[in-house]
Amino acid sequence: METLLLNGGDVEANADTGAVIDAVEAAFAAYERGDVQMPAKSYVDLPRYNGDFRSMPAYVEADEWDAAAVKWVNVHPDNPADHDLPTVMGTLIYSDPETAFPLSIMDGTALTMLRTGAAAAVATDHLAVESASSLGLVGAGVQSYSQLEAIAEARPIEEVVVADQDEERVADFVGAFDDRFDVRGGSISEAGHCDVLSTVTPVREPIVGADDLGERTHVNAIGADAAGKHEIADAVLLDSKLVIDDYEQCTHSGEINVPWSEGVLGDDDLHAELGEIVAGGKDGRTSEDGITVFDSTGLAIQDVAAARVVYENARENGDGYEFEMIDLG
Amino acid sequence: METLLLNGGDVEANADTGAVIDAVEAAFAAYERGDVQMPAKSYVDLPRYNGDFRSMPAYVEADEWDAAAVKWVNVHPDNPADHDLPTVMGTLIYSDPETAFPLSIMDGTALTMLRTGAAAAVATDHLAVESASSLGLVGAGVQSYSQLEAIAEARPIEEVVVADQDEERVADFVGAFDDRFDVRGGSISEAGHCDVLSTVTPVREPIVGADDLGERTHVNAIGADAAGKHEIADAVLLDSKLVIDDYEQCTHSGEINVPWSEGVLGDDDLHAELGEIVAGGKDGRTSEDGITVFDSTGLAIQDVAAARVVYENARENGDGYEFEMIDLG
Repeated sequence: METLLLNGGDVEANADTGAVIDAVEAAFAAYERGDVQMPAKSYVDLPRYNGDFRSMPAYVEADEWDAAAVKWVNVHPDNPADHDLPTVMGTLIYSDPETAFPLSIMDGTALTMLRTGAAAAVATDHLAVESASSLGLVGAGVQSYSQLEAIAEARPIEEVVVADQDEERVADFVGAFDDRFDVRGGSISEAGHCDVLSTVTPVREPIVGADDLGERTHVNAIGADAAGKHEIADAVLLDSKLVIDDYEQCTHSGEINVPWSEGVLGDDDLHAELGEIVAGGKDGRTSEDGITVFDSTGLAIQDVAAARVVYENARENGDGYEFEMIDLG
Repeated sequence: METLLLNGGDVEANADTGAVIDAVEAAFAAYERGDVQMPAKSYVDLPRYNGDFRSMPAYVEADEWDAAAVKWVNVHPDNPADHDLPTVMGTLIYSDPETAFPLSIMDGTALTMLRTGAAAAVATDHLAVESASSLGLVGAGVQSYSQLEAIAEARPIEEVVVADQDEERVADFVGAFDDRFDVRGGSISEAGHCDVLSTVTPVREPIVGADDLGERTHVNAIGADAAGKHEIADAVLLDSKLVIDDYEQCTHSGEINVPWSEGVLGDDDLHAELGEIVAGGKDGRTSEDGITVFDSTGLAIQDVAAARVVYENARENGDGYEFEMIDLG
């Protein structure tokens, strides 16, 4: 039996965005029902190299499929300058839960981009105004590309405003999308007055204040991924309908972690986990709602869901390289 | 940059037994010094399939090298009967700790065999009588082969007695080794009266009693890997110099877990963790010692150490398949 190896290009070629969003949404619903196994991320700290590894195992039993995987991913901020390598790389092992045979091993870097965009799309679908047609982006890095691709599946986005201090990155972003969208560079406030805003920066002092947002903007807060990081002013979070992906992860390392640790935000300020809204137990946007915020930290169940779509498509398309990895004796 | 893929055959071909034992010993020493990162194993339970996955990440900073990996391994007892697949399969991602780039992905099944044998060899080196020349094996499965290969590096083994209810497995084992050793089938007691005994069965009621052992036999208790399993009678454990690989794992799922949970065995009955002996803080066998027992559960740091040897040798030998897994953009 062979294990299907999928590199970054294979992952991207086989990641049908709509299907990934559906799978991620199904995973959130399963999470709410208790039909997932997702141990806490394990951290392997490497102070000697200013980095760390995280192992993220999970099993998802959705309505129509089940799947299991582990992602091994790192954060090494010195990589770009010292080694000409990305800060974050990932490798995912996708296994048949019935037998545990490793069906596929794939580039988890590309997959992380996809599943993060997909979660924002699911949140946007439930929390943005129905008529949303404009998307703002704070940060023009690689994740912003995934945000636009995914959110355009949830709402008929026409206008895009991207804010970044690096003009070259803005120009690259505009060039990549100006055949499909009315896309331009702009200020944070211009981006924030779109119907939907995604923030994808690693800042430790908030850069999006209350005046920077429209009255009914939905915000996907993507950037914060460690204690001490946040992008959105406390006043915005306190006044918004606030949705998180996972209580443990968000209070520890998500957008809300700083005001949470300072006691500014508490349980009463949280509207729901995204899974509760997807499963129908809590409401998404209602006619009374103003600003909504989704705090996305990224869950292992999203990786499992996205990996399944990629694997199934790659099999069907005959992509990847088959390797007899496991000695079956 | 490419990731080196190593299948089961590549792993075995590049696993120099002596080098793996040295690396595993160095990993135990690093563990004792606090120079490893080893989060607890994460379990993903699959009651629907009567199985589970475990993710085992670790980083080891030994005196002369450092290395990091995660192993994704399962236990699916119905696999042989229902799917013609092994109960246990594993896949390991071996990463450069400095950059986190995945240097290699390898069959973790073969590697698990190797590193388990290597730990027994390290324990045997410190706990068996110096003059040991005979090895008993209870159980003639695949791990027994690894036990013999590894322990023969620690002591000049000449005579081997293998006990198993399955005569065909005994005959296969004898046939595999009779060109190198004086090897024969025998009873548990005959095996246990050798200088060294390794027990490698999944039993839940002890099968090795006090009368089954020689006065100064060193026992490697390998089989117990889950709560409720044990191979050695409580009376033996209580009278022996008892060494464990890891306190948390052994009390939870190792040879000592059953008498431990019943309160028959406690902290005062434990002589040391193997790392303490390797590092010199606690003594191994002394002239006063009778029976010694090593409770082996298998640590992620052993996998890391063994994987490093395999990877370095495979690179040197030009083995494996190079695959451009990670999209460096």
